[in-house]
Amino acid sequence: MSTTAADLVLAVDTSTTGAKAIVQDPSGAVVAQASRQLPTRQPRPSWHEQDAEDWWTATRGAVAEAVAALDDPSRVGALCLTHQRESFVCLDAAGRPLRPAILWLDGRAHEEIARFGTRSVHETSGKPPDTTPAIYKLAWLARHEPDTLRDAAMVGDVHAYLTWRLTGRWATSDGSADTLGLFDLRRMTWSPDLLAVAGLRAEQLPALVPVGEPVADLTPDVPTALGLPAPVPLVAGIGDGQAAGIGLGATTPGVAYLNLGTSMVLGVQSDAYLWDPAFRTMAGVRAGLYTLETVLNAAAYVATWCREQFGEAGVDGPAGSGLETAAAQVPAGAEGLLTVPYWNAAQTPYWDPLARGVTVGWHGRHTRAHLYRSILEGVGFELRLHLERLEAVTGRPITTIRVVGGGGRSALWVQILADVTGRPVRVCADEEWSAAGAAVLARAYLDRTQGVADGSGAVRPGGPSEPGAPAGPGAPAGPGAPVVPGEPAGRDVLPDPAATRRYERLSAVHRRIYPALRDVFGDLHAAAREDDAP
Amino acid sequence: MSTTAADLVLAVDTSTTGAKAIVQDPSGAVVAQASRQLPTRQPRPSWHEQDAEDWWTATRGAVAEAVAALDDPSRVGALCLTHQRESFVCLDAAGRPLRPAILWLDGRAHEEIARFGTRSVHETSGKPPDTTPAIYKLAWLARHEPDTLRDAAMVGDVHAYLTWRLTGRWATSDGSADTLGLFDLRRMTWSPDLLAVAGLRAEQLPALVPVGEPVADLTPDVPTALGLPAPVPLVAGIGDGQAAGIGLGATTPGVAYLNLGTSMVLGVQSDAYLWDPAFRTMAGVRAGLYTLETVLNAAAYVATWCREQFGEAGVDGPAGSGLETAAAQVPAGAEGLLTVPYWNAAQTPYWDPLARGVTVGWHGRHTRAHLYRSILEGVGFELRLHLERLEAVTGRPITTIRVVGGGGRSALWVQILADVTGRPVRVCADEEWSAAGAAVLARAYLDRTQGVADGSGAVRPGGPSEPGAPAGPGAPAGPGAPVVPGEPAGRDVLPDPAATRRYERLSAVHRRIYPALRDVFGDLHAAAREDDAP
Repeated sequence: MSTTAADLVLAVDTSTTGAKAIVQDPSGAVVAQASRQLPTRQPRPSWHEQDAEDWWTATRGAVAEAVAALDDPSRVGALCLTHQRESFVCLDAAGRPLRPAILWLDGRAHEEIARFGTRSVHETSGKPPDTTPAIYKLAWLARHEPDTLRDAAMVGDVHAYLTWRLTGRWATSDGSADTLGLFDLRRMTWSPDLLAVAGLRAEQLPALVPVGEPVADLTPDVPTALGLPAPVPLVAGIGDGQAAGIGLGATTPGVAYLNLGTSMVLGVQSDAYLWDPAFRTMAGVRAGLYTLETVLNAAAYVATWCREQFGEAGVDGPAGSGLETAAAQVPAGAEGLLTVPYWNAAQTPYWDPLARGVTVGWHGRHTRAHLYRSILEGVGFELRLHLERLEAVTGRPITTIRVVGGGGRSALWVQILADVTGRPVRVCADEEWSAAGAAVLARAYLDRTQGVADGSGAVRPGGPSEPGAPAGPGAPAGPGAPVVPGEPAGRDVLPDPAATRRYERLSAVHRRIYPALRDVFGDLHAAAREDDAP
Repeated sequence: MSTTAADLVLAVDTSTTGAKAIVQDPSGAVVAQASRQLPTRQPRPSWHEQDAEDWWTATRGAVAEAVAALDDPSRVGALCLTHQRESFVCLDAAGRPLRPAILWLDGRAHEEIARFGTRSVHETSGKPPDTTPAIYKLAWLARHEPDTLRDAAMVGDVHAYLTWRLTGRWATSDGSADTLGLFDLRRMTWSPDLLAVAGLRAEQLPALVPVGEPVADLTPDVPTALGLPAPVPLVAGIGDGQAAGIGLGATTPGVAYLNLGTSMVLGVQSDAYLWDPAFRTMAGVRAGLYTLETVLNAAAYVATWCREQFGEAGVDGPAGSGLETAAAQVPAGAEGLLTVPYWNAAQTPYWDPLARGVTVGWHGRHTRAHLYRSILEGVGFELRLHLERLEAVTGRPITTIRVVGGGGRSALWVQILADVTGRPVRVCADEEWSAAGAAVLARAYLDRTQGVADGSGAVRPGGPSEPGAPAGPGAPAGPGAPVVPGEPAGRDVLPDPAATRRYERLSAVHRRIYPALRDVFGDLHAAAREDDAP
């Protein structure tokens, strides 16, 4: 499908905010890159929608720009996708969207979560009842827009839609489709029971391709649109969280990736299927491997909110701002002020869509800097809770934490995370780690098909181009050589034992706040008649 | 003791922040006034101290300036005091302070409150275990500064100290001394059991004079210092809260005074001795009458704190500020944000020194204006709780609420209080209502001794110069005529029924927050090792 001269891989991360394309050479170096932004609509406070057409337009634009920067576009040997997860689109038989795509963070389906989010659904899908899986939003559509689901010829995830536009095939990666919450995750295929909950027919769903396997070649007109001289194979990718884990080399036990962005996601790999409220279970990089993820939907989101609402005028930059500097002067523990950062509901380990943020301990000595610090610390207490629950269920200690995302730019916050958890963390260089993970998959495919690897045709750990190897620019490998495992470049931050002891006591108090208020949130929701209630 | 020509009364309110002197003519009109500020020291975060000498200096200065403004100082026929309550001083035999006076808001004795604050102490003193009564701070002194208590020849309240300086007699009003928390309130005298808790000997305490009775004439040199041509009688006053109630005419069942200042105090009169966590029971205007007060130590305190911490730069005025205007645009209920204003611990009805402020319901749509509104509403929810508990225990509905204090200048806040409680409130004119109450007592004494009243020698309700009659400038009475009962001038604010219905639901949620978090506060206090812990 590709020529022996094709030694570059093309990877795209079509995330919630935009599409980012990179081209990597065999050493892992990024030789070209480009990006396009993606607009989001919020027709009601908790609704979040995008036009699937924009997914394609942004992806095409980013790829075309990256390809145009290459001296020789014919060197591109494979394309692999990673993307925002859980978002889905309903198409007619001609592939036209029947309504705007509904995104992972859309919160419209809280009644369906309460009604259908059973223990059995969790056990089958690996997903605790929560906002993100599409299954509940599909059930919402079945109730509120029954025509859409009935008339849809195709219902699929972002990878499915982009595959359709790229290859004309209605197919997706199993590592991408899983996030819709419709999979029997042990069997890695659609669950009839879950399709029934969602109100879907099996024939509406895309064909499944294992992660790392070829999906199809690009349709004849597409290469031209992308600036490629000839069709290249599309390799089945995986959701952006797991892709970042691959990019960061967090694919062996004890190594976690931590995405500290708008939300906070911590992921570790598991070689057994486990399901528990302590995490959500996602498809792994190959059959029999799973990714266990803990989630806090509002992490940097709350810090940004605080700076916008309470920062000094003109001071709302991420790090080094006046508020950040002032918060660094406040003692560890914020003089008795604790904040539970459930601005966007509770996820790990409570999965409570009605939970909201709480600040406890207000006293006259507290300033806006105390509030800001208590927010950063509150995310730290959540991280500690996530780690401890995860270790308790898996029985495996987490010894290495690799941090990526905008939050890592705050030296104060990273130190707080190290201190609160009592663990060293590595702040990784600011790269496109999800796209890098997709590039690892494309590279592995290319190596196999070009006879460099074992020829088994399957991506497997331990092989010369194992997806567990980090693929950043620092990876030491020459052109054509396999990518060898290594650690992503970054800065190690060590915990301060005295601060850790202080946080130890506060952590025990912090984790009692939500359980104490659990019943209050539901009643507050009802009493306040929030605008986002259906 | 006074001449028949003496038709003016002099009243002084020696409060926490300063001394305010007024001179009233028989119509109740203020013909002269003056004030002096009082400094407070805070040697540790929760400690609050003043020099008793400053009480005297400020009082003398204010009185002298008011008297100096009179055409004929010889017309002053009586002097009466009102003052900050619960504060106390320890003196040597010469009347010199042995240490700074410890104020009502001083929070150093939380361990003694926990140890000695029994149900029995509450039943005897009428005071729920709390920060304010002196008994716990005296027990703290017995433990931490035993020499002070042992060496003190005199231990007394503000009225006692001022009486000592004015008359040379070691005496006080029973309506003033009661607030130390050492009284058997049924018998209106010192309780041996409570003196034992405080580590005091009975001979250290001042003699007791019933409210409204003469204490003594001024000592010969004092009139000169005050600018008075001759000694005048000092009439036993009462604490500033009850005095304000007298000034406002809140001395009949169903009529409450509401002081909405730094703290919020609601008071009603009772003709039976009652004790309950729903209120603190204070001495009334005569034997057999009591004042039941509910208390929230941080009311305008929290609003001011919020404006200082989170207000726009330069916008921290009380009412009409940018934050106030913005909060008025936020819907009733602050879109699901609830604040429990226990910045200075919980008083009515929980009396928990370790409680702190809480904000529940944070969401991304909330702004600083939401926080501000939720604080104003939070004080409203507390007021509603106070009213309902008070009515439940007394069995008497409260139909009239007369608001004084700085908070009354916020039109938004007063409307919120009316809406949350579902009751009309009257915002009274901005007068010195405590001093006006003391003036009523002085006037009643003058009337009796000059033969205008019934001659019984006792202040009694229903008489022509009954202390229940408001004594503000608007009271319609000519010179020499008795002050007739009436309502204080002010602006009536009516509740909006729709807002009241909305707040009804939120109120039920709001009052569940503290009980849910009760145990968390103690652990948070221990974990944070607050600086004010001994």
